[in-house]
Amino acid sequence: MSVTHPAGFVAAGVAAGLKSTGAKDLALVVNQGPRFDSATVFTANRCKANPVLWSQEVVKDGTVKAVVLNSGGANCYTGPEGFQTTHAVAEQVANGLGIGAIDVVVCSTGLIGLANDRQHLLDGVDACVAGLAVAGGADAAAAIMTTDTVPKQVVVEGAGWSIGAMAKGAGMLAPQLATMLVVITTDAVLDAADLDKALRAATRVSFDRLDSDGCMSTNDTVTLMASGASGITPSVEDFTHALTQACADLAMQLLKDAEGADHEIAITVLNAVSEDEAVEVGRSVARSNLFKAAVFGNDPNWGRVLASVGTTTAAFDPADLDVAMNGVWVCRSSTPAEDPANVDLTGREVTVTIDLKAGAERATVWTNDLTHAYVHENSAYSS
Amino acid sequence: MSVTHPAGFVAAGVAAGLKSTGAKDLALVVNQGPRFDSATVFTANRCKANPVLWSQEVVKDGTVKAVVLNSGGANCYTGPEGFQTTHAVAEQVANGLGIGAIDVVVCSTGLIGLANDRQHLLDGVDACVAGLAVAGGADAAAAIMTTDTVPKQVVVEGAGWSIGAMAKGAGMLAPQLATMLVVITTDAVLDAADLDKALRAATRVSFDRLDSDGCMSTNDTVTLMASGASGITPSVEDFTHALTQACADLAMQLLKDAEGADHEIAITVLNAVSEDEAVEVGRSVARSNLFKAAVFGNDPNWGRVLASVGTTTAAFDPADLDVAMNGVWVCRSSTPAEDPANVDLTGREVTVTIDLKAGAERATVWTNDLTHAYVHENSAYSS
Repeated sequence: MSVTHPAGFVAAGVAAGLKSTGAKDLALVVNQGPRFDSATVFTANRCKANPVLWSQEVVKDGTVKAVVLNSGGANCYTGPEGFQTTHAVAEQVANGLGIGAIDVVVCSTGLIGLANDRQHLLDGVDACVAGLAVAGGADAAAAIMTTDTVPKQVVVEGAGWSIGAMAKGAGMLAPQLATMLVVITTDAVLDAADLDKALRAATRVSFDRLDSDGCMSTNDTVTLMASGASGITPSVEDFTHALTQACADLAMQLLKDAEGADHEIAITVLNAVSEDEAVEVGRSVARSNLFKAAVFGNDPNWGRVLASVGTTTAAFDPADLDVAMNGVWVCRSSTPAEDPANVDLTGREVTVTIDLKAGAERATVWTNDLTHAYVHENSAYSS
Repeated sequence: MSVTHPAGFVAAGVAAGLKSTGAKDLALVVNQGPRFDSATVFTANRCKANPVLWSQEVVKDGTVKAVVLNSGGANCYTGPEGFQTTHAVAEQVANGLGIGAIDVVVCSTGLIGLANDRQHLLDGVDACVAGLAVAGGADAAAAIMTTDTVPKQVVVEGAGWSIGAMAKGAGMLAPQLATMLVVITTDAVLDAADLDKALRAATRVSFDRLDSDGCMSTNDTVTLMASGASGITPSVEDFTHALTQACADLAMQLLKDAEGADHEIAITVLNAVSEDEAVEVGRSVARSNLFKAAVFGNDPNWGRVLASVGTTTAAFDPADLDVAMNGVWVCRSSTPAEDPANVDLTGREVTVTIDLKAGAERATVWTNDLTHAYVHENSAYSS
């Protein structure tokens, strides 16, 4: 179900021939109304792929009627020809649905610098349009997978309205959006301004706190479409709460499926002067290859945690930091405390807690360990 | 020879019992004068090890008469007890040499959070003092090795004066000093202010441009001692030139011995608005795990280069970037150009050239690839 769980949405996913494996590689999600309010956030990377350049124009008026997504090629750094391919795909969707191309968001994922076969895409769009159905959500979620090992979907129920969503992403997961494409649907009645407010609030504490490998993609897009088909207008607060729940759930699904990872690591920073400083500290640890390799080796190396904390500008006393791993306070006041041998890192879930003793704010950043499989997958991806 | 090549210096290196292997682990380099001018730069990490906290006080008056260095334990986050160990080592050196402890720089390297055996250190200092000799440079260079596979030394000849140096460092190599300890000696006559100026200029374009794994150490120290024994005063310009040559040579030795690396990668950024922006762009690529894993796999993945460039604030047009790998311009104006199949990455040395087309400044940043051996070495280091 997922994106087609809320009333007013149909979807499809087909094999358009972009993937050499013959797997599904083209998805279409369509809002059938009666309303077409939307909000979208894009990658903060200044080098943006052609579909992002196109979709930035589409979303400006707050109206989105369909999202078409392909895997098997990012259509990034493919020049004017690549942009025309994106445009042609939007036009094909628009013609098939009897809407305007300017209401069609396009998303692509896969290798950079690779031209997508335009005819395959256009034929695939026709197949998608022909196959649109409420039952098509699962096919759509499967069609956007790249190195993902499982499709990612979630449904959150409101009071008479609901949210559905699907995501792809397994590597290049980094701040200001992971390498991921996300489509979120709702049948709640909310205008574009409220949707935008809710989406920014939800992504700020979910996708933006995920930093699997420190690499920021060129294609990230999260689009939220509201059909209004439930006829119910929730408070922005209630909607934001449910939306945050949906985004956090998907973020954890992305984390758990990160390329080659053996551990999911939650780094919680306590008693920071501000939430921003807590995030800065958490992210510095999440980006330490030495720390991440140690976790892979089941080594509770808190020295590498403090060495990362020390690279930040956050307020703290370097001589008075506490660190716990899986609840064992291995470091108190920047000196050895409980025996690290008591920290069992053999499970997948790892928690690191850092007490800055400087204020009252906190934040959690999620990352993965650095493994042989990560190196293997990312050294062999394009060959 | 190395640190004892310039007139006025003696050194020693012994096995003090800190390393369980019985290898040499304590080094002493002594300036016999007639002058004792010096300059030192430390890690920019705010979490500093005890020897750094001590040595910061030592160097304040510009006079350093000896540097004592141990491997086998970083003496970092070991609390007041650890600071007292550092102090005791400096006192032992001072007593042995008949100088003041406040003129003795102390350096330590190895695991964080591990107390060093004080008695082993003090006994080792006595052995070092007894063994001081002009012939002791090589032993000193061997005694500071941790995961280094080879000792690092260099000599640069001036006109009647010279520079000698030794270094250790193989991982945690990152901006504002790699994890490394460096002792540089010269018999030129220069005061502390000129030495400081020269040392900052030299490290800025050598060690500071080395970013092997993005991790910044807690213990980095580079100390330069001038004995004046040649009686010759070179111009600050000539001295800075020779010092930069020595530092650059050591930096390349560090790069080539980086933990588990298969490739040395020089990232040169051309036509930036400023040198700082060129460095920012180079460093962003040097920190991309995806790019570094691709190089390990001999994959000329220029898309991952551009994706990193796009995360910076440097001035450039995202639609007009050129990228070459090993001299093959695989990307022109942000679109595919020469065939990546023409890029042969099977050799160790890799060059990446990025033309920003925004100004006239340039800079080179050096890094390594991300390999299975890096993950292995850093997941198993403390276990």
